[in-house]
Amino acid sequence: MRDINQFTITDAVKKTFETEQGSRFEQLLHGLLDHLHDYTREHQVTHEEWMGVLNFLYDCGQISTPERHEFILLSDVLGFSALVDMINTKGGATEGSNLGPFYLDEAPRKQLGSDLSDDRDGVCILVHGKITDTLHNPLPGAVIDTWQADAAGTYPIQEQEQGQDKYDLRGVFEADEQGRFYYTTVLPKPYTVPYDGPVGRLLRAGNRHAWRPAHLHYIVRAPGMNAITTEVFFENMEYIDNDAVFGVRKSLIAKVSPAKDVAALGYALDKTPDAVCAFDFVLAPEG
Amino acid sequence: MRDINQFTITDAVKKTFETEQGSRFEQLLHGLLDHLHDYTREHQVTHEEWMGVLNFLYDCGQISTPERHEFILLSDVLGFSALVDMINTKGGATEGSNLGPFYLDEAPRKQLGSDLSDDRDGVCILVHGKITDTLHNPLPGAVIDTWQADAAGTYPIQEQEQGQDKYDLRGVFEADEQGRFYYTTVLPKPYTVPYDGPVGRLLRAGNRHAWRPAHLHYIVRAPGMNAITTEVFFENMEYIDNDAVFGVRKSLIAKVSPAKDVAALGYALDKTPDAVCAFDFVLAPEG
Repeated sequence: MRDINQFTITDAVKKTFETEQGSRFEQLLHGLLDHLHDYTREHQVTHEEWMGVLNFLYDCGQISTPERHEFILLSDVLGFSALVDMINTKGGATEGSNLGPFYLDEAPRKQLGSDLSDDRDGVCILVHGKITDTLHNPLPGAVIDTWQADAAGTYPIQEQEQGQDKYDLRGVFEADEQGRFYYTTVLPKPYTVPYDGPVGRLLRAGNRHAWRPAHLHYIVRAPGMNAITTEVFFENMEYIDNDAVFGVRKSLIAKVSPAKDVAALGYALDKTPDAVCAFDFVLAPEG
Repeated sequence: MRDINQFTITDAVKKTFETEQGSRFEQLLHGLLDHLHDYTREHQVTHEEWMGVLNFLYDCGQISTPERHEFILLSDVLGFSALVDMINTKGGATEGSNLGPFYLDEAPRKQLGSDLSDDRDGVCILVHGKITDTLHNPLPGAVIDTWQADAAGTYPIQEQEQGQDKYDLRGVFEADEQGRFYYTTVLPKPYTVPYDGPVGRLLRAGNRHAWRPAHLHYIVRAPGMNAITTEVFFENMEYIDNDAVFGVRKSLIAKVSPAKDVAALGYALDKTPDAVCAFDFVLAPEG
């Protein structure tokens, strides 16, 4: 190893790892070493620049807590989270999109037709649609887990100190025998990702904003099907074409229309909506 | 941006950064995005694998303190620190090697010929050599800053709680009018890099050890010359050919010989050495 130079060191480093030949761990490790060593050579990275990278990661680590994962945020604003979502979307299924930092296990079960808004101010929308497989067969008993911001762009979990209940604006619904789901809620507003830390410094250094367009979060599951984690956005709304975390896909944009013919849908609703947003989810079979 | 897919997202992310065209920041940022997005695509990285990477970085951040920079350690064991040293070594100059985590500003000034060991047990070695420019001209007044482990492989700074002085086994010497330096000290022993954290988990996952061969650390400076940060290793000693952080270069390995003809060197020494280690440093001019 005393003979290594800048062109042979990459193989030397790989060889020190006694990984199972051809294993996934080996592939991922070797690929990362190849790409990042090439990067370092191609750009003739200096000591100061490299320490800048390492200290940036250090700072990301120092601001992180169990409630704030700055490395997920970094992955989001650099498009990695979106790229991983795109790569892992199954053919024919609804496209995946960011999980985001506000998901909570064990959101409350709600009845179809109930209202999620807990009387919050804002536009009351009916959100409804069907959950099917890729051959358009309805999936009765599919489960839809949703969470969202309010009409000020805030998640209740962010304002627990102001007395908000972190389980507000969340709910788990079971689709009916036709695979339908329906509930009313408040139309959410855009908000910024946290920009008071190292990732915010990076955004400012590149003259980038921190805004996300308004959206609803979903995890949809059904027995024997691949679960999907995704988001639904709203046509013509602010930041729809420049989401700070690259979550928007054309197929995930829903129309919001005035609630004219809601009665004809035949839903039993707890609250009368001002507007309607329809969106169908498609799940692909496992394996 | 709603039309992005896994092949167009990389350019879309680059375009959101309004960086100065052709600036170093833009080059480094775009290069990193190109390489790491390619990596993600080539290996079809899954959500679980990507979260594994992000959580590994999170863990590195959580164990880091002002005294422990786990990201530097990660850079070391993956060969990045060595690669950056190699890339930035100036033609004709002594090769660079790891700074390591134990450097201290303001180590005590010592007289040539003094002993660094503070009466520690072990083999007493005379370390001596010349500091020249790349044309072999001596550099009188060059300054050599050294620090090292003891004969148990421990740096005094690691045992401050056991009453050790963190400035022990360190010294700053000024070369004489012939560019010579000379001092006695204790022959250091191999030691392990910290492996009780996430980087240790990575090493174990790849069946790698955490040992470094014994070495002396140096920063050498002279007016008008590029300073070098490097290490000197000892021929035939343990781990010399499998340093956990890839610091060894053939040109940085010195011989350790019995101290037979020390008197002929004409040095005034505070202590009589058992062995001699000779090493010359070469500095390249600035710019």
